[in-house]
Amino acid sequence: MTQRPAAPMSLGEFDLIARHFTRPARRNPLGVGDDCALIAPAPGMQLAVSSDMLVEGRHFLSTVAPERLGHKALAVNLSDLAACGAKPLAYTLALALPRADDTFLAGLARGLHALADRHDLDLVGGDTTAGPLNLCLTIFGEVPPGAALLRSGARAGDELWVSHPLGEDEPGWLGDARLALEVFRGTVGLRVPGEAFDRLRLAMECPEPRVALGLALRGVATSAIDVSDGLLGDLQHVLRRSGAQCQPHGQPLGVVIDADTLPRSPLMSTQTEAVQHECLLAGGDDYELLFTAAPADHDRVREAGQRSGTGVRRIGRLTASGGTVVVGRDGQRLATPWASFDHFAA
Amino acid sequence: MTQRPAAPMSLGEFDLIARHFTRPARRNPLGVGDDCALIAPAPGMQLAVSSDMLVEGRHFLSTVAPERLGHKALAVNLSDLAACGAKPLAYTLALALPRADDTFLAGLARGLHALADRHDLDLVGGDTTAGPLNLCLTIFGEVPPGAALLRSGARAGDELWVSHPLGEDEPGWLGDARLALEVFRGTVGLRVPGEAFDRLRLAMECPEPRVALGLALRGVATSAIDVSDGLLGDLQHVLRRSGAQCQPHGQPLGVVIDADTLPRSPLMSTQTEAVQHECLLAGGDDYELLFTAAPADHDRVREAGQRSGTGVRRIGRLTASGGTVVVGRDGQRLATPWASFDHFAA
Repeated sequence: MTQRPAAPMSLGEFDLIARHFTRPARRNPLGVGDDCALIAPAPGMQLAVSSDMLVEGRHFLSTVAPERLGHKALAVNLSDLAACGAKPLAYTLALALPRADDTFLAGLARGLHALADRHDLDLVGGDTTAGPLNLCLTIFGEVPPGAALLRSGARAGDELWVSHPLGEDEPGWLGDARLALEVFRGTVGLRVPGEAFDRLRLAMECPEPRVALGLALRGVATSAIDVSDGLLGDLQHVLRRSGAQCQPHGQPLGVVIDADTLPRSPLMSTQTEAVQHECLLAGGDDYELLFTAAPADHDRVREAGQRSGTGVRRIGRLTASGGTVVVGRDGQRLATPWASFDHFAA
Repeated sequence: MTQRPAAPMSLGEFDLIARHFTRPARRNPLGVGDDCALIAPAPGMQLAVSSDMLVEGRHFLSTVAPERLGHKALAVNLSDLAACGAKPLAYTLALALPRADDTFLAGLARGLHALADRHDLDLVGGDTTAGPLNLCLTIFGEVPPGAALLRSGARAGDELWVSHPLGEDEPGWLGDARLALEVFRGTVGLRVPGEAFDRLRLAMECPEPRVALGLALRGVATSAIDVSDGLLGDLQHVLRRSGAQCQPHGQPLGVVIDADTLPRSPLMSTQTEAVQHECLLAGGDDYELLFTAAPADHDRVREAGQRSGTGVRRIGRLTASGGTVVVGRDGQRLATPWASFDHFAA
């Protein structure tokens, strides 16, 4: 801990920030400017709440365009609502800034507002302070009691699904964000044509939260989670929490995944099998929905995908035991060292 | 912006953090551990939301005891609910830490949990990341539609009130937090006996949010704000926002304050008049409620104070015009350079 206080911002800087981020609340009774904002969920609705903190160098690179940073900061929060099947209502933004740079703030606000408008979401409040760059968003959605998609609802026998973009040219395929990061880092052996890198970079910097799919999966999916730390790692949360609910001794559920069925972009398909498997199964920053549903609801899942304009792919099946098994093209079990990362502990 | 990534935390460190902060939700349907938490406001209630970000060196000193830091981080958020007249329900905690130190985290959690328990408040979720020390809390309370105390409801003729502790020995009198900070900074000319400093320091580090008073003032006060940036400065928000609602051309309301009536601790009374005035009128970090009520409701305000075990003192009267006037002991108008700080711009 340093003894030096953070450099104070000038008062004009606070005004600048307020100008970029103060907009009238359209869906909520009271927005920015009082001690509290007021949110009015529809009668009888529960409120789904999620909070994410983004730190430079850890969650985004210092070279990111401010508009994309704004998009991503909100997208990762919307993705949590999507994984709950909640309808977006409002969010707050707390911001620590080393200095108030007009270009940076204007871009950040543009990225936030554009995505918020697409999801009919009010920025209702927040806080600004001088300090090392840090964005903390808290997001609110509404969901009928009992309808939230939880990590704990999967059962042995359920089919395992993952979402994907509809078009091959659409950015945001599973694993592409990780591939972009590795290319950016200059990892040896990765070959990506220059023009293709821009699309990869979009996957990393502009993820598309699957809000419409989350809503469409209410009453269909038995569990859901968004893929932020890598598919296998996030899946462990579902297997453990669901197992604790339904297994005789609370042991985690197992899963068999067919690696060949994992959806991937044409660009990913040009990589070596090892790179593909690591990016697809342990990539992170994907923000696709990973969810389970009873086999009897197979067609309802497909319909939910169509209704929400989102691709959905069945990639495996949950089991009562046997741990996490990924089967490769040759029918052999793949080594999946990433699944056992401590990071993935529930 | 630095190019270097924040030092990553080890996975054991994340576990450590989870251990200190994961407790079952008691009042809310779903707490820590899923993509979202679920909050169920009572039917028909609106949700009051506030978010505050605390940065080391700006909002707290690096020497603060972790338990007190936990208390203060939650107290400043509870104070926002109090100023709205909202009943506390739940909060989220997002935390950036340079490293996970067990003693620090245990203390922080103790301070948070103790104050949360007193207000029947669940920690329902949040986020943890490696990065420069930063705490971002978002708090949720419930309030019946139309009952929230806003900054915009004051009218010319209203009496101006401020809250204070009941006992002379109780910590947390107006201005004491600022006095503590100045003593801490070694500001020349300040004389405070050693044993008295501990009580001053409590005012700065352990503010008592006036939640019960805020609830008791529903339907009684016409406006309210909590004093965090200094009494005169925070008052300007009320005068401007209320004036915009009720004045012919939206000009701010005026106010006449009798400096002699400002509540103060015995220790404050031993300071020079200049120090007293600056600490009382422009101190900051007070977290008392500053509120207005119609003169006809004078006795109802007193009753609200009694019912909530909080001192309330009438300190002035709102006017249709005339700006901010503070009258001193000799009946002369005091100079109040602090009132015009740009920082206080609405």
